[in-house]
Amino acid sequence: MKKVVTVGEILLRLSTEMGRRLSQTDKLYMHYGGAETNVGISLAEFGHDVYVISKVPNNPLGIAVERYLRSYRVHTNYLLKGGERLGTYYLETGVGQRSAQVIYDRKNSSFANLEKEEVPIREILHNTDLLHITGITPALSKSLRELTLSTLKSAKEHNVLTSFDFNYRAKLWSQKEAGEVIKYLLPYVDICSCGELDAIHLLGIKSNVSLSKKDRLIYYYKKIEEMYPNIKCFYSTFRDVTSASTNTLQGNLYVNGELYQSKVYEIDHIVDRVGGGDAFSSGILHGLLENLEPKQIVSFATAASVLKHTVHGDGNPFSKEEIFAFANNGSSKISR
Amino acid sequence: MKKVVTVGEILLRLSTEMGRRLSQTDKLYMHYGGAETNVGISLAEFGHDVYVISKVPNNPLGIAVERYLRSYRVHTNYLLKGGERLGTYYLETGVGQRSAQVIYDRKNSSFANLEKEEVPIREILHNTDLLHITGITPALSKSLRELTLSTLKSAKEHNVLTSFDFNYRAKLWSQKEAGEVIKYLLPYVDICSCGELDAIHLLGIKSNVSLSKKDRLIYYYKKIEEMYPNIKCFYSTFRDVTSASTNTLQGNLYVNGELYQSKVYEIDHIVDRVGGGDAFSSGILHGLLENLEPKQIVSFATAASVLKHTVHGDGNPFSKEEIFAFANNGSSKISR
Amino acid sequence: MKKVVTVGEILLRLSTEMGRRLSQTDKLYMHYGGAETNVGISLAEFGHDVYVISKVPNNPLGIAVERYLRSYRVHTNYLLKGGERLGTYYLETGVGQRSAQVIYDRKNSSFANLEKEEVPIREILHNTDLLHITGITPALSKSLRELTLSTLKSAKEHNVLTSFDFNYRAKLWSQKEAGEVIKYLLPYVDICSCGELDAIHLLGIKSNVSLSKKDRLIYYYKKIEEMYPNIKCFYSTFRDVTSASTNTLQGNLYVNGELYQSKVYEIDHIVDRVGGGDAFSSGILHGLLENLEPKQIVSFATAASVLKHTVHGDGNPFSKEEIFAFANNGSSKISR
Amino acid sequence: MKKVVTVGEILLRLSTEMGRRLSQTDKLYMHYGGAETNVGISLAEFGHDVYVISKVPNNPLGIAVERYLRSYRVHTNYLLKGGERLGTYYLETGVGQRSAQVIYDRKNSSFANLEKEEVPIREILHNTDLLHITGITPALSKSLRELTLSTLKSAKEHNVLTSFDFNYRAKLWSQKEAGEVIKYLLPYVDICSCGELDAIHLLGIKSNVSLSKKDRLIYYYKKIEEMYPNIKCFYSTFRDVTSASTNTLQGNLYVNGELYQSKVYEIDHIVDRVGGGDAFSSGILHGLLENLEPKQIVSFATAASVLKHTVHGDGNPFSKEEIFAFANNGSSKISR
Amino acid sequence: MKKVVTVGEILLRLSTEMGRRLSQTDKLYMHYGGAETNVGISLAEFGHDVYVISKVPNNPLGIAVERYLRSYRVHTNYLLKGGERLGTYYLETGVGQRSAQVIYDRKNSSFANLEKEEVPIREILHNTDLLHITGITPALSKSLRELTLSTLKSAKEHNVLTSFDFNYRAKLWSQKEAGEVIKYLLPYVDICSCGELDAIHLLGIKSNVSLSKKDRLIYYYKKIEEMYPNIKCFYSTFRDVTSASTNTLQGNLYVNGELYQSKVYEIDHIVDRVGGGDAFSSGILHGLLENLEPKQIVSFATAASVLKHTVHGDGNPFSKEEIFAFANNGSSKISR
Amino acid sequence: MKKVVTVGEILLRLSTEMGRRLSQTDKLYMHYGGAETNVGISLAEFGHDVYVISKVPNNPLGIAVERYLRSYRVHTNYLLKGGERLGTYYLETGVGQRSAQVIYDRKNSSFANLEKEEVPIREILHNTDLLHITGITPALSKSLRELTLSTLKSAKEHNVLTSFDFNYRAKLWSQKEAGEVIKYLLPYVDICSCGELDAIHLLGIKSNVSLSKKDRLIYYYKKIEEMYPNIKCFYSTFRDVTSASTNTLQGNLYVNGELYQSKVYEIDHIVDRVGGGDAFSSGILHGLLENLEPKQIVSFATAASVLKHTVHGDGNPFSKEEIFAFANNGSSKISR
Repeated sequence: MKKVVTVGEILLRLSTEMGRRLSQTDKLYMHYGGAETNVGISLAEFGHDVYVISKVPNNPLGIAVERYLRSYRVHTNYLLKGGERLGTYYLETGVGQRSAQVIYDRKNSSFANLEKEEVPIREILHNTDLLHITGITPALSKSLRELTLSTLKSAKEHNVLTSFDFNYRAKLWSQKEAGEVIKYLLPYVDICSCGELDAIHLLGIKSNVSLSKKDRLIYYYKKIEEMYPNIKCFYSTFRDVTSASTNTLQGNLYVNGELYQSKVYEIDHIVDRVGGGDAFSSGILHGLLENLEPKQIVSFATAASVLKHTVHGDGNPFSKEEIFAFANNGSSKISR
Repeated sequence: MKKVVTVGEILLRLSTEMGRRLSQTDKLYMHYGGAETNVGISLAEFGHDVYVISKVPNNPLGIAVERYLRSYRVHTNYLLKGGERLGTYYLETGVGQRSAQVIYDRKNSSFANLEKEEVPIREILHNTDLLHITGITPALSKSLRELTLSTLKSAKEHNVLTSFDFNYRAKLWSQKEAGEVIKYLLPYVDICSCGELDAIHLLGIKSNVSLSKKDRLIYYYKKIEEMYPNIKCFYSTFRDVTSASTNTLQGNLYVNGELYQSKVYEIDHIVDRVGGGDAFSSGILHGLLENLEPKQIVSFATAASVLKHTVHGDGNPFSKEEIFAFANNGSSKISR
Repeated sequence: MKKVVTVGEILLRLSTEMGRRLSQTDKLYMHYGGAETNVGISLAEFGHDVYVISKVPNNPLGIAVERYLRSYRVHTNYLLKGGERLGTYYLETGVGQRSAQVIYDRKNSSFANLEKEEVPIREILHNTDLLHITGITPALSKSLRELTLSTLKSAKEHNVLTSFDFNYRAKLWSQKEAGEVIKYLLPYVDICSCGELDAIHLLGIKSNVSLSKKDRLIYYYKKIEEMYPNIKCFYSTFRDVTSASTNTLQGNLYVNGELYQSKVYEIDHIVDRVGGGDAFSSGILHGLLENLEPKQIVSFATAASVLKHTVHGDGNPFSKEEIFAFANNGSSKISR
Repeated sequence: MKKVVTVGEILLRLSTEMGRRLSQTDKLYMHYGGAETNVGISLAEFGHDVYVISKVPNNPLGIAVERYLRSYRVHTNYLLKGGERLGTYYLETGVGQRSAQVIYDRKNSSFANLEKEEVPIREILHNTDLLHITGITPALSKSLRELTLSTLKSAKEHNVLTSFDFNYRAKLWSQKEAGEVIKYLLPYVDICSCGELDAIHLLGIKSNVSLSKKDRLIYYYKKIEEMYPNIKCFYSTFRDVTSASTNTLQGNLYVNGELYQSKVYEIDHIVDRVGGGDAFSSGILHGLLENLEPKQIVSFATAASVLKHTVHGDGNPFSKEEIFAFANNGSSKISR
Repeated sequence: MKKVVTVGEILLRLSTEMGRRLSQTDKLYMHYGGAETNVGISLAEFGHDVYVISKVPNNPLGIAVERYLRSYRVHTNYLLKGGERLGTYYLETGVGQRSAQVIYDRKNSSFANLEKEEVPIREILHNTDLLHITGITPALSKSLRELTLSTLKSAKEHNVLTSFDFNYRAKLWSQKEAGEVIKYLLPYVDICSCGELDAIHLLGIKSNVSLSKKDRLIYYYKKIEEMYPNIKCFYSTFRDVTSASTNTLQGNLYVNGELYQSKVYEIDHIVDRVGGGDAFSSGILHGLLENLEPKQIVSFATAASVLKHTVHGDGNPFSKEEIFAFANNGSSKISR
Repeated sequence: MKKVVTVGEILLRLSTEMGRRLSQTDKLYMHYGGAETNVGISLAEFGHDVYVISKVPNNPLGIAVERYLRSYRVHTNYLLKGGERLGTYYLETGVGQRSAQVIYDRKNSSFANLEKEEVPIREILHNTDLLHITGITPALSKSLRELTLSTLKSAKEHNVLTSFDFNYRAKLWSQKEAGEVIKYLLPYVDICSCGELDAIHLLGIKSNVSLSKKDRLIYYYKKIEEMYPNIKCFYSTFRDVTSASTNTLQGNLYVNGELYQSKVYEIDHIVDRVGGGDAFSSGILHGLLENLEPKQIVSFATAASVLKHTVHGDGNPFSKEEIFAFANNGSSKISR
């Protein structure tokens, strides 16, 4: 198995129970997660050696994060302790026609205030096979932008495969800001996750409305490939949101000039879609690390994402075997 | 904003949790509500000055009702205290193919025994813009029939706009009884909510099966308009019940001889449809009070009703802004 | 009403709440049930005199089983007390695209170790109208195979109507083992529940893929009828599993050479499908005991099964009246 | 074992969870119970054949009562179905320094409106060993006063042992009313439960403050014995209420001119004291039915009552064996 | 009744359930409260016209605070909306030998950043009878120190009675800082709550260990009175903490040179002691506003505090009548 | 820090909620634990490198055990996967006067069937500082008796400190059996936990009733020391069980011929006493590993045990720092 490193914030999510608004509830459910860490947990569950670079306060919430990561086999050697607080957000859980609402309360967190000097990047990257990072980290602070850039650079110097997911969050930064920063990062990226809106609004590529959805994606990926020939593969999902409880999902993986697509899943009775995208990313990264066939990779990754929608929590608790079995026959019968 | 007065009973609803029958459960969830009060809460949430005329016992349940109303900005100056008991009903929550069941235990309630003399109608109606009342109130007792009639009459004398919703409940009175009483009330009504079955069975209008559903509704409204030319507008919804969890909903508003319809919503994963009709009424009344365009009113009201189905409780906790946003783009994506 | 006897294990089911995996939860919900007992409970609820032959440990779980049965009018005279333990299984509740998982922990249970001599078969069968047993009982132990065979034989000697449901469970025995045992039992069976896979894999009948699903079923039933002319009627359901939360269901009843089918139900928002098949069986058996028309029987039985999917627990808590009402109009409107 | 008959109302108790006031909660816990029925359940659990005379509405709550009784082996042959509603009360659970509050909502219940003619008293009393009734039943309506009196008379004609518990409830009738009615009943009573306040305020016996608590009780019992020489034994408890969670309890049994007392229990961490007195009564009645020694009876009955305080619900779910074991060594160690 | 104004932060409290550590739980209970607001709620419940000066974010948590206050009759005219976030703290609920732990996450809250200019002090104080404020407010920011001082000064100019509670919180500021600030405030205070440790460590009064606890308190109050002759009365409680679940409590009120003490309560089975001190303060302030006798005031206030310990939440939900009844007989018997 | 190895079964505990009997509940709470593992978790929490030798089934319950251990820093390298089932027991939680009841369902578990050959003892013991094992392990099967003996012997060969806790369980084996086996083990033990009853009934030492409790313990320890001079120290607790919710606890540590005792704690409002003894053992073992003073060790260990009683679950989640702080001042005040 491979050594994987992720850099990213771990937040406390405080969710309402289904059918209650945040202003009406007196009970909140706790989950810990963050885009990069969710990927790390899933890769650890698949058997890889995963190290998370992050920072949490030295209080019971920090302890809880540490226990959560360790329970999923994630190494916590580089989970720093200190700083002011754990970044938090409230999730008013959506259902049916009502979408979920996120209220961020993440400013001034231990991770947002992390300084580049606190992280022994070279030591960590030694013998590492894959580095994964997303656009949320550089969105959080100036210091984290520097950390992101220098980590990616350092990774390339150590021959570490680098993975970057745009993960644009409008509540964290403007499209303009994000685009400028990401353009500095992309020259050091091998594997890239982005979609049509990212291409248009962050990278400034002209939209091409005359094409089909699939062909448009190929068109954008080719354009980005021209700009950053270092990028070896792209991935993303097509998600149609019928309601907060019903979506369709199709995975896309672009490699060697060709787009591979999974079948289209109709996902209904969604339990929790937070982390659904990260489950897809982990599937792609696992497939690439294991040198699986592109068709198989995108099928595995999409199945992983679909299953994630059926459980509470940010991390994907399914094993490789369960995901392959689901990808292959997807039966929903009781086995007894 | 406007001054609004409602007259109606507030009941304690005791509901089972989903998937449990009343005979199998050992836990009940409490909600307070009533057709007129639900409208009042929603109008208060939209910013109007709402006064509820009702009566609750002088015990902890009465206190709970009072706190509930006040928390939603409803004025409780005319919420009388006294009498025997709070009207109650048990709701065996429906799900999928199984419909909800209501077991009423509302006889002899403080409100049902309310005497006309206890209510200072003229004082209350002073400066009032809108009076809202439904067919449930006169169904409860002889004394309340008198109160209903004299309040409507008094409202017309004070130039108060009057709104009446048929709200026929077969468990409370027969169609014959209801029809007779309502015919006395309609001459004092400006805004009227009723549907095809009300027209046929309560008002004795001949059904006209050769027409489409939409044209039939126009036909009935024209007939009623002929009988009661004082009525300035009619409204109602078309609801198709696929299952207890899946409905379609379309709003209708008839004004100046024309029927305005909202788009048809597919509502799935219904959390609680009690109060869904009242949410629609409040949307219509708000739109009329604010002199919005008929098309906009029915769109706003239907959106309000759809959103109500996604939360537990009788009252509609959504703001005007949230409802307009939903009516306009209805996205169910997470905003983050 | 009729006297009915069932023989079978009663298990403790320990289920996770929706959206939690077994490895992630700290809370389990308890239900008691077993294929034959579920049928017994439903028949008792329909008004029959039902006696359950089973064995539970002499501890609080055994007491709980006893109280549960008695609460549904089932006679516990032949519910033996003793032995090692109550058979148990864990159910990781499925939802949406994720199917339920069963983890059996039922070995060495009080019932599995039941000896033929402990049961006064002749005494019990006295005046009995119907004996119901399923393939799970002989799958559990050698001693229970003997008990099954001798009980069926004894029943035929006492002119008791006998009902046998294949209920094949791959986790309990192989198709080969099951087929061999069941072939010994079928000569004593009057009413038989089995499906296409049973016919092919357990009885060795050649599949006939050129026919439609319906015609294939007729074909298999005719074949079995030829082998065991004592069997007077067959029944089964067609179930399509769209997801763990959405199924379609159609009931089949084959009698006097003709196949009667219910309408096809789309079941959505499934609460708990465990016991759904047993609810169908009880509907069929009730109809046969009451000499209803075949068309009416299969309609009643399918309606019973559909309703069962809307409540937690193995037993079907609906009354005859409720099931008939649902079969006839199936409305999901709130009645109020 | 013996045949026992009780007459009394079964109520739905709706309790708040600990630490929440009724005006603050949105969840209620359901228990069914009533003074006489609680005694019946416990006697059935001890092995007696118990028949409950009562009436519940023909709705899901009535079904729930029936299932509850049957689960505890109580015969429901004389549990009538019909009438308006199930008597209900709200219990704001007490804890520490705050006492529990009862809000009755029991008027116009099916039982309160029960007519003497509906009950086939002579048929029921055939072969009965013991009739148990309390002062709550005659407090509910004129018709029930007649039923109480005629049942007691009828019992004496059939040589049935009669048991009467004063059970005075100030919220149901005045001391004067209660005293007058009870004086008519006592001539037909063999076993009587009452205390000092009953003797003074209901029977008008002069208090005798110069004596110790124990000697006062003997004094009152002797006085009542003089007035009603038919009464063969008296029983009651001394309860000191330190707080809603901490009480002391001592049982008293007066028979053949002598007072037998249990040891004094310090009861702490009280879970639910509703039904604590009825558990004591059942212990006394069981001991008398089984002709145990007075000392043993009062010890058994008090132990039964103490154990009842440790479980939710009105009925006492402990077996004879458990109660004797507790009475004898009372250990609170884990047994493992 | 009187007009009362309070100034203070309202926090979201996130508590674990009993017996779970914060690092182990996945569920938190929400309560809103703050020292000054808790007093305001209780005074509103006693019938006074209460206005809370505070600031909450313009998001669902801010709405929840507003609804909570209104439900308890508190006026929200001066509850400002805006700023960054709602101050939050985590409470690891204590039980038995384990004390509760508070983890503050309140920095940068909307209230902490409130500027003096946002509050129309003179308008608010018009016709006000009492202003209540505690040491927490000036501890939060420089701007709030100025607001506190200018509000107190302004109150004295308007002849408003002023109440100040030291409420020293070591996690917010040092004793030195607190002492310096409070010395500036005390010249404008009429009613003062402080205890021995405040006198020694904040005001620098020499301790006097030779005296009894009671006499020491008198000694400190006399000393402070000499320093600030404007202070008309002092109050505080003696609390002995046997365990997190068992405390003793005695109230002290010093007025006209004399110390009045309540009886000593043994409080056991504590449900939630947060807000217990504020309940005491509200009792004192109510008594002073109503010109009750000192003995009666301290008895009422201590009873209020004891009752608060028996319910979850910061605010005291008991009415005057309930508190007087408890103060007078304190019975913990069920009333039925 | 030190390397520690434990050998023992990990069970699934299924507990009722407080105030519900097992026969009455429909919900069970899950905890994982076992005497040796509980000690291991606590030592890992104190900072030691702990390896657990055990075996769990290869199913979701086995995965849950693994995650639980890892979350508390325990190494799972020697947690074998395989076998039939996870040993289970039901705990009817005690409260007040009612003691907890244990119903074992642990036969035929993966661990009970563990064969000596599956465990690479020599590899594991390499560089180990301490081996901890209790009497439960040899009680489970013949094969485990051999494993226990050979592991202890092997440990002595490797100069590993050995710790043995009698932990006699009457439901697992007779005193005679236990005594015979333990006598074979003691010659290889350095640290021994046993009490008076163990000495009398398992080792056959004559009781000496004339002495005080403390002196009797010294007497027994001296006697055992004479029999097994290899044992370097003994420890145990004195526990008085007032009720299931109230105990007193005092720790004893006998070393170099002297008995050191902690203060006596009154433990009230007990949340969960399962694992309380193991928490004490871990405190003792930690103190010995760290060469603390005997007085300090017993104080630390007893404080650890007391704190354990305040949280749900078998493992002790408190840090060294928290335990020392509690041992030193034990305050139950809120810190804020």
